[in-house]
Amino acid sequence: MHFTPTNIEDLPTPCCLIDKAKMQRNIARLSAHIGNLQCTLRPHVKTHKSIEVTKAIIDAGNVKGITVSTLKEADYFFKHGMNDILYAVGITPNKIAHVAQLIQQGCDLTIVIDNEDMLSLVLDKMAEHNCVFKVIIELDTDGHRSGVNPHSHALLSIAKHINNSAHAKFEGVMTHAGESYACFTEKAKQNMAAQERDLTLHAVKRLFEVGIHCNTVSIGSTPTAFAVDQLDGITEVRAGVYVFFDLVMAGLGVCDIDDIAMSVLGTVIGHQKDKGWVITDAGWMAMSRDRGTADHPQDYGYGLVSPSGSHEARYIMSDANQEHGIITEVSNASPESHSEKHIDSSLNSSAENNDSIFTQFPAAKAIEILPNHACATAAQYDHYYVVENGVAIDKWLSIGGW
Amino acid sequence: MHFTPTNIEDLPTPCCLIDKAKMQRNIARLSAHIGNLQCTLRPHVKTHKSIEVTKAIIDAGNVKGITVSTLKEADYFFKHGMNDILYAVGITPNKIAHVAQLIQQGCDLTIVIDNEDMLSLVLDKMAEHNCVFKVIIELDTDGHRSGVNPHSHALLSIAKHINNSAHAKFEGVMTHAGESYACFTEKAKQNMAAQERDLTLHAVKRLFEVGIHCNTVSIGSTPTAFAVDQLDGITEVRAGVYVFFDLVMAGLGVCDIDDIAMSVLGTVIGHQKDKGWVITDAGWMAMSRDRGTADHPQDYGYGLVSPSGSHEARYIMSDANQEHGIITEVSNASPESHSEKHIDSSLNSSAENNDSIFTQFPAAKAIEILPNHACATAAQYDHYYVVENGVAIDKWLSIGGW
Repeated sequence: MHFTPTNIEDLPTPCCLIDKAKMQRNIARLSAHIGNLQCTLRPHVKTHKSIEVTKAIIDAGNVKGITVSTLKEADYFFKHGMNDILYAVGITPNKIAHVAQLIQQGCDLTIVIDNEDMLSLVLDKMAEHNCVFKVIIELDTDGHRSGVNPHSHALLSIAKHINNSAHAKFEGVMTHAGESYACFTEKAKQNMAAQERDLTLHAVKRLFEVGIHCNTVSIGSTPTAFAVDQLDGITEVRAGVYVFFDLVMAGLGVCDIDDIAMSVLGTVIGHQKDKGWVITDAGWMAMSRDRGTADHPQDYGYGLVSPSGSHEARYIMSDANQEHGIITEVSNASPESHSEKHIDSSLNSSAENNDSIFTQFPAAKAIEILPNHACATAAQYDHYYVVENGVAIDKWLSIGGW
Repeated sequence: MHFTPTNIEDLPTPCCLIDKAKMQRNIARLSAHIGNLQCTLRPHVKTHKSIEVTKAIIDAGNVKGITVSTLKEADYFFKHGMNDILYAVGITPNKIAHVAQLIQQGCDLTIVIDNEDMLSLVLDKMAEHNCVFKVIIELDTDGHRSGVNPHSHALLSIAKHINNSAHAKFEGVMTHAGESYACFTEKAKQNMAAQERDLTLHAVKRLFEVGIHCNTVSIGSTPTAFAVDQLDGITEVRAGVYVFFDLVMAGLGVCDIDDIAMSVLGTVIGHQKDKGWVITDAGWMAMSRDRGTADHPQDYGYGLVSPSGSHEARYIMSDANQEHGIITEVSNASPESHSEKHIDSSLNSSAENNDSIFTQFPAAKAIEILPNHACATAAQYDHYYVVENGVAIDKWLSIGGW
């Protein structure tokens, strides 16, 4: 697709920007880390749902295949040349016909299950199709959401049940330590990464002892992928949000604020001077409703505003309506201070501060806002502007829905 | 578009359902109320972004034109036959070329402004186009977000400035009492509705006294639209979410739970029996990240699950990941009790309750989940399934983005 390079100030607002150099730096960082541990990546494309971002990840090396969160993503990425795809949400009978269609078209698609009840139901559906379904068992290694207990009898019985079917083939195990999003220290992330890996390897060992081999041993989340220091026995690591990072990841110490490659570009609509408010045309539709830093020591509201390229936590989107954002100044807070919550503090802002915010953000000014959660923000858009040195050099499409 | 009627259980999940009878009942209710007050509606299409829903509103009568929240909505609805369109977000210079294009195509589009700085900037841009821009001044009648103070000198000077321009024509005033979303009693809603109306009429009077006539006097929000009891001097009322309603509106007492016409259909993926969790394939991508009931007396988490058509507040989506929802039982709570918060109470649920939730929601069961905020949930989809008597009878497309 031809795109005429455009200065950021001339883009329609709100829109979503990707800083290409930062994205490539983030991609290279995890690729190198996993490569150093002699393992491979299966990036989760749910974060961006973009073939161009996926190609950038593949170009950096150490990539085995991709992970998707919807069958629509599987359709899209298969159509664009990806073949080895893991659909990482527990399968249901009403999706088997769709999966069969992809397999019959030549897609090397693997599906996920974590319970016997569902297995029986999907095996019935599988029998209606003339193909073999590769199935991975999801493990619960952190009590976060889905998965079978690695110590349970169910693990073994589900694996045997899969292998005894004419329509399914047992492929291995996977887990996602989503509880790593509550790990604020290096030690906590390292412990969670070790737990995610070791409980998975324990399940592999138990299956091996009853004669069942795991081709695939798949673990990962962005925080644990960076924290893990040894991957023997693991065949692949999954992570998604690391390509862009966001304020949640910065809050967890997985990246610096300056590593965040995604921002929302908005325009100042006006001022409510008595309240210290700057109103923008980027509201929650542009940022998403995600308030992922709400329970962090530093709460950024709906996003961190970055005037003149600075990333200090001085101005945040403290509230949002559908197509309106309210930018306020964080009162007297050291950006490094994590000792108390800082949000909605505009009522305390002095006249001097008010002058400052209105000078910083005059009417019609274009402003960049860093998101709490890149996956949620990205999902509000069907395209990104790719920025290099302050100029949008390309427009990348993305998909949504199911 | 041809659509083969489909039983709900055979729809792909997650998907978004509209109960047609409830939607029509909601539409008729506001149409009758505003008609009884001898006024007209300018429905806000941002809630649904669907031409079919808009046609249903128009069919019910008393409709003057539509309100949009993006210029993409203006493009879409103009292309589908709507002519009288109010773009209700403060205009910025980078949108004037787009507005001019619509006006030159014959669209009767009105734009909104609330400050002199922006007016000067957009007048410069308007001069580049060969058309006259109809401009409404936004009033701040509740301290909610944008708008000029109805008592201020700025109101008069902005109106004069517009009328002195060769490129702009002053059309009138508008306001939105968004603070009505914090009005939990009938009295509070009535007071807010009266305040929204009376401060607007005060602005009209002040403008009249300096010789400036308002063609359009536009007010509204869903809670105040239903609460207002007299509309003399008001030319139109705007409201959006009333067509579907949602848990926030039910929490405010604007509707009953049974009036909510939008739901998300999900499928049970599995169970975490030790925690009392039912896992579904509808997560926050399907519901949106909106936690609009978080500060209500009854907090529904990410949504209220409605087993077997019952709407009692027994099961809620207490947590959500991108494509996973966690359904838990609200412990021992009377659905009528608003005396304390009820969320994330699964840890207290007894073995008996756990039996009950797993019996109610077995693997592969289709479940309907009512949303906190219909506008936010609708935005996660590009189509709705229209349901009559438990059967999807049609598929309506919607738009998103900017």
